[in-house]
Amino acid sequence: MSPPVILVDPLPRTLDLIMEPDVRARLERLGRVVVSEDKPMDDATIDALLPETALIFGQTAMPAERIARAAKLKAIINVETNFLPNVDYEACQTRGIPVITPGSAFAPPVAEAALGLALDLARGITAADRAMRAGTEEYGLAGNRDTFRFAGAPVGLIGFGDLGRNLRDLIRPFRNPVAVYDPWLPGEIIERADCRPASLEDVLSTSKVIFVFASVTSENQHFIGAREFAMMQKDTAFLLMSRAAVVDFPAMLDAVRSGHIRAATDVFPEEPVAPDDPVRKVEGLILSAHRTGGTVDALYAIGRMAVADAELIMRGLPPQLCRRADPAVASRLRSKPVSVT
Amino acid sequence: MSPPVILVDPLPRTLDLIMEPDVRARLERLGRVVVSEDKPMDDATIDALLPETALIFGQTAMPAERIARAAKLKAIINVETNFLPNVDYEACQTRGIPVITPGSAFAPPVAEAALGLALDLARGITAADRAMRAGTEEYGLAGNRDTFRFAGAPVGLIGFGDLGRNLRDLIRPFRNPVAVYDPWLPGEIIERADCRPASLEDVLSTSKVIFVFASVTSENQHFIGAREFAMMQKDTAFLLMSRAAVVDFPAMLDAVRSGHIRAATDVFPEEPVAPDDPVRKVEGLILSAHRTGGTVDALYAIGRMAVADAELIMRGLPPQLCRRADPAVASRLRSKPVSVT
Amino acid sequence: MSPPVILVDPLPRTLDLIMEPDVRARLERLGRVVVSEDKPMDDATIDALLPETALIFGQTAMPAERIARAAKLKAIINVETNFLPNVDYEACQTRGIPVITPGSAFAPPVAEAALGLALDLARGITAADRAMRAGTEEYGLAGNRDTFRFAGAPVGLIGFGDLGRNLRDLIRPFRNPVAVYDPWLPGEIIERADCRPASLEDVLSTSKVIFVFASVTSENQHFIGAREFAMMQKDTAFLLMSRAAVVDFPAMLDAVRSGHIRAATDVFPEEPVAPDDPVRKVEGLILSAHRTGGTVDALYAIGRMAVADAELIMRGLPPQLCRRADPAVASRLRSKPVSVT
Amino acid sequence: MSPPVILVDPLPRTLDLIMEPDVRARLERLGRVVVSEDKPMDDATIDALLPETALIFGQTAMPAERIARAAKLKAIINVETNFLPNVDYEACQTRGIPVITPGSAFAPPVAEAALGLALDLARGITAADRAMRAGTEEYGLAGNRDTFRFAGAPVGLIGFGDLGRNLRDLIRPFRNPVAVYDPWLPGEIIERADCRPASLEDVLSTSKVIFVFASVTSENQHFIGAREFAMMQKDTAFLLMSRAAVVDFPAMLDAVRSGHIRAATDVFPEEPVAPDDPVRKVEGLILSAHRTGGTVDALYAIGRMAVADAELIMRGLPPQLCRRADPAVASRLRSKPVSVT
Repeated sequence: MSPPVILVDPLPRTLDLIMEPDVRARLERLGRVVVSEDKPMDDATIDALLPETALIFGQTAMPAERIARAAKLKAIINVETNFLPNVDYEACQTRGIPVITPGSAFAPPVAEAALGLALDLARGITAADRAMRAGTEEYGLAGNRDTFRFAGAPVGLIGFGDLGRNLRDLIRPFRNPVAVYDPWLPGEIIERADCRPASLEDVLSTSKVIFVFASVTSENQHFIGAREFAMMQKDTAFLLMSRAAVVDFPAMLDAVRSGHIRAATDVFPEEPVAPDDPVRKVEGLILSAHRTGGTVDALYAIGRMAVADAELIMRGLPPQLCRRADPAVASRLRSKPVSVT
Repeated sequence: MSPPVILVDPLPRTLDLIMEPDVRARLERLGRVVVSEDKPMDDATIDALLPETALIFGQTAMPAERIARAAKLKAIINVETNFLPNVDYEACQTRGIPVITPGSAFAPPVAEAALGLALDLARGITAADRAMRAGTEEYGLAGNRDTFRFAGAPVGLIGFGDLGRNLRDLIRPFRNPVAVYDPWLPGEIIERADCRPASLEDVLSTSKVIFVFASVTSENQHFIGAREFAMMQKDTAFLLMSRAAVVDFPAMLDAVRSGHIRAATDVFPEEPVAPDDPVRKVEGLILSAHRTGGTVDALYAIGRMAVADAELIMRGLPPQLCRRADPAVASRLRSKPVSVT
Repeated sequence: MSPPVILVDPLPRTLDLIMEPDVRARLERLGRVVVSEDKPMDDATIDALLPETALIFGQTAMPAERIARAAKLKAIINVETNFLPNVDYEACQTRGIPVITPGSAFAPPVAEAALGLALDLARGITAADRAMRAGTEEYGLAGNRDTFRFAGAPVGLIGFGDLGRNLRDLIRPFRNPVAVYDPWLPGEIIERADCRPASLEDVLSTSKVIFVFASVTSENQHFIGAREFAMMQKDTAFLLMSRAAVVDFPAMLDAVRSGHIRAATDVFPEEPVAPDDPVRKVEGLILSAHRTGGTVDALYAIGRMAVADAELIMRGLPPQLCRRADPAVASRLRSKPVSVT
Repeated sequence: MSPPVILVDPLPRTLDLIMEPDVRARLERLGRVVVSEDKPMDDATIDALLPETALIFGQTAMPAERIARAAKLKAIINVETNFLPNVDYEACQTRGIPVITPGSAFAPPVAEAALGLALDLARGITAADRAMRAGTEEYGLAGNRDTFRFAGAPVGLIGFGDLGRNLRDLIRPFRNPVAVYDPWLPGEIIERADCRPASLEDVLSTSKVIFVFASVTSENQHFIGAREFAMMQKDTAFLLMSRAAVVDFPAMLDAVRSGHIRAATDVFPEEPVAPDDPVRKVEGLILSAHRTGGTVDALYAIGRMAVADAELIMRGLPPQLCRRADPAVASRLRSKPVSVT
């Protein structure tokens, strides 16, 4: 009997970026691995392999007719981490083929950076460094006129998926009261994490530090706009960590420029940001070029999680580390595919 | 019977800076409060009050002859938080008069800022912001070429008093292995905090992030010099949080300028730093003008801790929040008094 | 338009046992609730309601033909918490109808009791009480001849689902090294919980306290037998918390009677246990009549979790609190239905 | 120069019981060790050695005249762990000679056992075992009629020294609200441990589980009597862990016998308890023969802590692990010396 085929079509990622040698060796032990990583796998190869394919690692287009021909397919493992519309999720569900992705791999580095940015905004780290370079520093208490302690400050989380939960765990020693707005979750999930379920208005108006970890859907684009920024307290620290499209970006910049809030952002409406984009000059804003998640260790975690779940699936067991695409949810999500890793 | 006198001589602090109204009210309930805060209390007043004085809040000079005349003195509570040589510690000990200080009040804000600075050095927060303002940013993985994850990185602590212990608790969620060098402590204290007791060389050569929290003594000035910086791994993040005199400052700047390490410092050999001091221009160094401890809440904590212990002492109970001066140790410490709060 | 029907068929549970009034009120708001709790819902009623039924709460038989007629069915929520063979799981999957259960509700009380039993076995609580009632007690060190500290003792977990994870969190302050045997999980899940993935032999031979939290499947009945008990260290504390069928029960009793191990069990091969069953007289065994999970709060948690997920499902969102039946796994599980709550 | 003398007079302990070989070797390296452990050291030996004695390990009588002759004495280290009246604490303080004891060594095992006893009382572990042996067991929910979940139950601590703090840390995963009554401590110490400072009445009337960890002083004997037991809620779990004399013992037994509370005690007014003492037959009471602290590891911890602090003291540094006798406090404490280890 021929070994099962494992079709690897990982662009924009490559296997070397997501798998350390020992993980790749584990992948090789699962079947006959066929890789295309200089370009997307060509249709002829895909069509030839499909009948024997047990696993797809990557973002291969899988319309219903291909799924029908992949009689031995056990799972599709997206390694780009956004569910794309090129898979027929309903057809996969009907066949009992899970479509999964190790997207939570990015949560630890993003949450770590989010805390770093929040401490910076609260305690004035970047600002104090600039002041000292400009010769305008003040010492001791005078140097803390515009700062506040992160410890104990009311924190608001908008979105409580992997990112929010990672951040929540990182800040436990600071003993903040934490309010969470996440309309996709029952209050019980939020309360179990020692947080308080809250409305968006409540989070915006009572928090001193607000982290935005929400996904973009067809329904929530720009849901944080001028009206919402006006609800925030003066000097609130606002951190945009997930997707630029959830906020009205110009309204955010206005709120920062006017001195109403201070902010940090890792995402921008258009990336790369244009050389002359005025966002580059906004005072009171910490800029990060969509780089808090893309760390070497996060990419290796993608490969490690994908292969560990592939091992379970080949043994007839359910995956444990990757998230499943829910057809209803997948169709709501509006992430753009990444063009850079 | 006349009420006990509480002599308050807090310069360079003032009562308003260290006590919120409810705390001050508690102080007033302990006895007749006599305050001098525009200038140090004059000798005549001190000498007149001493026989009835139960508590001294502040930095009044207390040589042996004054202690001898203060027959009802129960404690001296230093609110500047450095034990000065103007008190005869031996005489106090003989009389059973504790000399105490709420110095640990500064540890939480300093530790919080230290973590913020460490996350900045590890993840390149300040550097990425500068790059984006300069138009030289890189996105995703490319933007992380010079970064490392703080989570899991080997951490070294030099000094494990209040500062080190606060930092240790803040970083628990990051699961770092933590090595501690503190020659004044038994290994058991360090191990109980889930850290590894280590030699200085061990800490320097195995840590990716090094926090200096050591006090200055007559014996350890400049104990981290060129030889010690050379022992560190390339790209180590070095954070000088306690006293400038424990390091050879020019050697530290050389190690940063050469690109061997990256660093942040909250302290400087001379403060305020001269306008033309070249330290202001060093790349790879985050500058903070001795301001991580001097937060509003830390100053209020000083007052709150001092009054809470004063209440215990007036009831015949031992103090619980302030640290006692140990005559042997107090004579070794070489902190300069603060000239700015 | 008529409101959706919510078919409630909860025996052996009743709604009053699993829902506090506020939770029941939330259920009523989701649709027209039709309840049968004195007897299983009769076929005629089911068949009449199925075309308009949106949710089934309970253990109604749902073969393929019924599923086919339930055109508006969105989910089946099992409140008994064992997936029974009377549902066609494949048919549900094909239709995208999740079959879910709030079985994790039992994990917190079982884990809490498991820790209590483990502390008892380690520190000799029950034994010391008996000794003092018999007049044979010894004081101080002499009274600790057969005890060991739970803190720091090597712990082994067999099974790392909800029960194992709850127990793991409860024992964190005791700083035990924890080894886990769970062949259904990748090592990464175990390591994230600060445990060590291990083989069964490793767990059995290196642990001082062994907790059995494994489910019964068609493959693992009696997998801990005489050979496995012999592998354990003398005086190991062995806790059987999940299902009696995973151990060779007589072999366990022999290991206890011989003095090789000490044990506690919450489950028995036949329940209720026969009046003259010799298990009732075994020394060195703590007996618990399948009662560690069945607490009032656990039953209310079942209702609360079920309704919270029902609310999400009715909004088109995926459930968050209940576990989904995986057809492949459901067919392997061999739990008996409960006959008593 | 002759080496310093280390006078070891540890009865009722012996060196073997409190020091493992490596710890004893560290002791030997500190000076010339002179031991008397079959009987208290005789006066002639003491008097001959005193002028060269640097450290006393043990409970040697040290009135003022002996202290005066011990010109090189640096510390007295009590290894029995109760400060006895045979030392002139004032004279030691005047000379700057710390009198210290590693009494906190007992806190971890006592707190561990206290949690085990509390879980037993809450969840009915001992009671369920007895019921099953008597053939009167009930299964599932029916078997939990008289139980409550320890998790989340209001906990009250009476006394917040080493014992209370250890217990507090052990129960963190259970998320209990914790009220503390300790008149010797400022509220801040209690609040830092996430507990609520409270009056005795408040603790007694609002807690579902009450732990008594208080020391006996000349002022607090029998301070928990009939009136206080009456304040408790029905079915409160009451754990007496520190000293029998803080409660009115017969009143406690009455409260248990009447079914008002359930209780566990590790201490008794007279120990050993008389063979015919009716306490041995009280239902609803878990009995422990003053054995929760006297574990092998606790005794070794005494030696390890004592030697570690001795090492610091010989280097001129303050001790870090042992507690100092405060003359004012030492004179209030009323513990009986232990007659059994």
